[in-house]
Amino acid sequence: MKIIQRNEVTSLKRSVDQGTEEQRESVKKIIQEVRTEGNTAVKRFTELFDGVSLDQWQVTEDEIDEAYESVDGEFVKILSEAAANIRKFHEKQQSNSWFHTSEDGSILGQKITPVDAAGIYVPGGTAAYPSSVFMNVIPAQVAGVERIVMVTPPGKDGKVPAGVLVSAKLLGVTEIYKVGGAQAIAALAYGTESLTAVDKITGPGNVFVALAKREVFGDVDIDMIAGPSEIAVLADDTARGEEVAADLLSQAEHDARSSSVLVTTSEKLAKDVQQAVHNQMETLPRYEIVKASIEDYGAIVICDNKKEAISTINEIAAEHLEIVTENPFEDMAKVKHAGAIFLGPYSSEPVGDYFAGPNHVLPTSGTARFSSPLSVDDFVKKSSVISYSGQALREHGDKIAQFARLEGLEAHARAIETRKGRWE
Amino acid sequence: MKIIQRNEVTSLKRSVDQGTEEQRESVKKIIQEVRTEGNTAVKRFTELFDGVSLDQWQVTEDEIDEAYESVDGEFVKILSEAAANIRKFHEKQQSNSWFHTSEDGSILGQKITPVDAAGIYVPGGTAAYPSSVFMNVIPAQVAGVERIVMVTPPGKDGKVPAGVLVSAKLLGVTEIYKVGGAQAIAALAYGTESLTAVDKITGPGNVFVALAKREVFGDVDIDMIAGPSEIAVLADDTARGEEVAADLLSQAEHDARSSSVLVTTSEKLAKDVQQAVHNQMETLPRYEIVKASIEDYGAIVICDNKKEAISTINEIAAEHLEIVTENPFEDMAKVKHAGAIFLGPYSSEPVGDYFAGPNHVLPTSGTARFSSPLSVDDFVKKSSVISYSGQALREHGDKIAQFARLEGLEAHARAIETRKGRWE
Repeated sequence: MKIIQRNEVTSLKRSVDQGTEEQRESVKKIIQEVRTEGNTAVKRFTELFDGVSLDQWQVTEDEIDEAYESVDGEFVKILSEAAANIRKFHEKQQSNSWFHTSEDGSILGQKITPVDAAGIYVPGGTAAYPSSVFMNVIPAQVAGVERIVMVTPPGKDGKVPAGVLVSAKLLGVTEIYKVGGAQAIAALAYGTESLTAVDKITGPGNVFVALAKREVFGDVDIDMIAGPSEIAVLADDTARGEEVAADLLSQAEHDARSSSVLVTTSEKLAKDVQQAVHNQMETLPRYEIVKASIEDYGAIVICDNKKEAISTINEIAAEHLEIVTENPFEDMAKVKHAGAIFLGPYSSEPVGDYFAGPNHVLPTSGTARFSSPLSVDDFVKKSSVISYSGQALREHGDKIAQFARLEGLEAHARAIETRKGRWE
Repeated sequence: MKIIQRNEVTSLKRSVDQGTEEQRESVKKIIQEVRTEGNTAVKRFTELFDGVSLDQWQVTEDEIDEAYESVDGEFVKILSEAAANIRKFHEKQQSNSWFHTSEDGSILGQKITPVDAAGIYVPGGTAAYPSSVFMNVIPAQVAGVERIVMVTPPGKDGKVPAGVLVSAKLLGVTEIYKVGGAQAIAALAYGTESLTAVDKITGPGNVFVALAKREVFGDVDIDMIAGPSEIAVLADDTARGEEVAADLLSQAEHDARSSSVLVTTSEKLAKDVQQAVHNQMETLPRYEIVKASIEDYGAIVICDNKKEAISTINEIAAEHLEIVTENPFEDMAKVKHAGAIFLGPYSSEPVGDYFAGPNHVLPTSGTARFSSPLSVDDFVKKSSVISYSGQALREHGDKIAQFARLEGLEAHARAIETRKGRWE
């Protein structure tokens, strides 16, 4: 793991995969064909990309029950406990509609309503994580979304991984379709004969899924488009090298393009971590991925003082930030940009991936500068509420009409003045 | 104004202008050139599109003062009062960071921080509205954004409309650049030698601005891409035809593609409104625009009962919704989708455009199904905060490690287990 200078941290930035021209064209074509041909196109693309011909693409109740029977009871217990923690945290994110009254009788406010229907994309194969199901579905449920649809690519055997179905069952999600890739996003956005369109699509996926989400954005809403995972650790002499190293490696195993950075004021810790990373990675089953990730996007930055270190952390704007210092809360107060902040020696990043409660869908690639974790807010929208009183209009009507005329909008002015009979 | 059937309302939907292939290519080229050539490219495009050669493109303090001197004092007073109302409303949107403690010593929470820098696009010419400046800048200020940059295209005389500069001065915005179109968006997103890049871009613009915003989305955040304005009015026998008609026409004057729809249970009101629209539009200065808008996208839907009427209103998901019925609050409670809801006979839509306080940047084209008015929330982002305690890790560590292994992520499990020494 290399030691770099502060000004070199930007060199570690990886942008979101924008796909090739060919991939973008292919995605546009898939979306167009699903829009015009519906189920027929979906079936064709599933045959082509997933290698399986499905006459029935909605998962049946029997399939869900079968999956549930097949998994270990102990695992179901852990899953249930995790789901309860995640639900508890997200319930605290709920906002109330509010209003404010004026003495002139006017009322102004904001009304909050859930979106009608949300579509959750769950990746297939080895990336079919129960935790992803939880992190996307639970905020939608807490928001009050009435209809939650899940889509996930079938394996060559036409099946969906049991873990995904069990997670869905635990949450009470029953509308699940075996469809993946751009065709799944198109079906969610525009609907087919058998899948009614949704209003919001979330969930991670490969480059085709990401490109398709970008393409349908505007016709439906989407969550952010995630890049490879990343962690930054801000640590001082109080941190233990082997713990910091293990946390850095936990991000590195996700993807060869994942990034793991230690920012420290301690030369001793820097050396300890360097050594421990080297030692620990040798025995990891995903060694090749970890090695590539650490070599290309892993780094240690040694700073002269805490101020410099925090400024570096803000520059990185990491998806995951661990603060393992003498006073982590005080340092956290100075952090401006991070997806999730893990404080103190016990808050190893994986604690947040599965179990603690906060969402693991977080802004990557420096987008924590302007984006937030997936939350209940993503599944609601607001309406302004304006109830103007007669007294208010009498008092302010002329000013409003004058303002409208100054902006050149005569009909606006007249709409106000039509009411003059009511107050003169 | 035509009377249509309930199931015909979808025919009034207009989608957001996606631009032509040529426009999209042109926008990509402009962005690329601004990214590589910076100021030089900005200057070139300003010459090309705005017909003026500027050596200094940042607005000077003298120019701002000069504009301020040139406008009517009475207007400044109205502007100030409107700004105060808008600020007051948006202050109520502020959220607190929060945390929740567990008896095991763990703390979970959510920290809210403003984006560092916001860029506000203000259109030029006749669309250079002071109210737009207010509606975009004030939420950013209330959010606590430290740096707010305004961009607006210069006229052929190299000047910016006085109303825009006066509005900026009233709000204390001083960093203003004379640049418009895609080149302005590119400069805001990627920076040039003299304009430091921002994190979030908001504000309306023509098709080039909209396409550029869509193009830079991801590298910076953007607000929604707005389509033509629209209004739906839900009214019964208690409403007055001439007032409803005047409000419908106030939207129609924005754009030939604006949409104005009355949904009513009253045949009498339908006829009154039809007649009044016809009469009132004759004398409007923007008659041609209004006529085209009403003919193409204006309509009256007569429903059998209130339930049907509200269901139609939810289908439309209008940017502006007026409810002029016997019990507007009760009806509002049943409305699921609308950008802003105006209640009762005094809440003429223009009340909200300038003066009452809520934002006039609202979701159009049915996107109220999943989007919200521009708000303080658009200029902040959240970070999850996780401070796990030793007791919590002792209690749940094994489960977390087991969960990680079941998802095939061994390094995640080991990151937890490296801490075992701390609790065993």
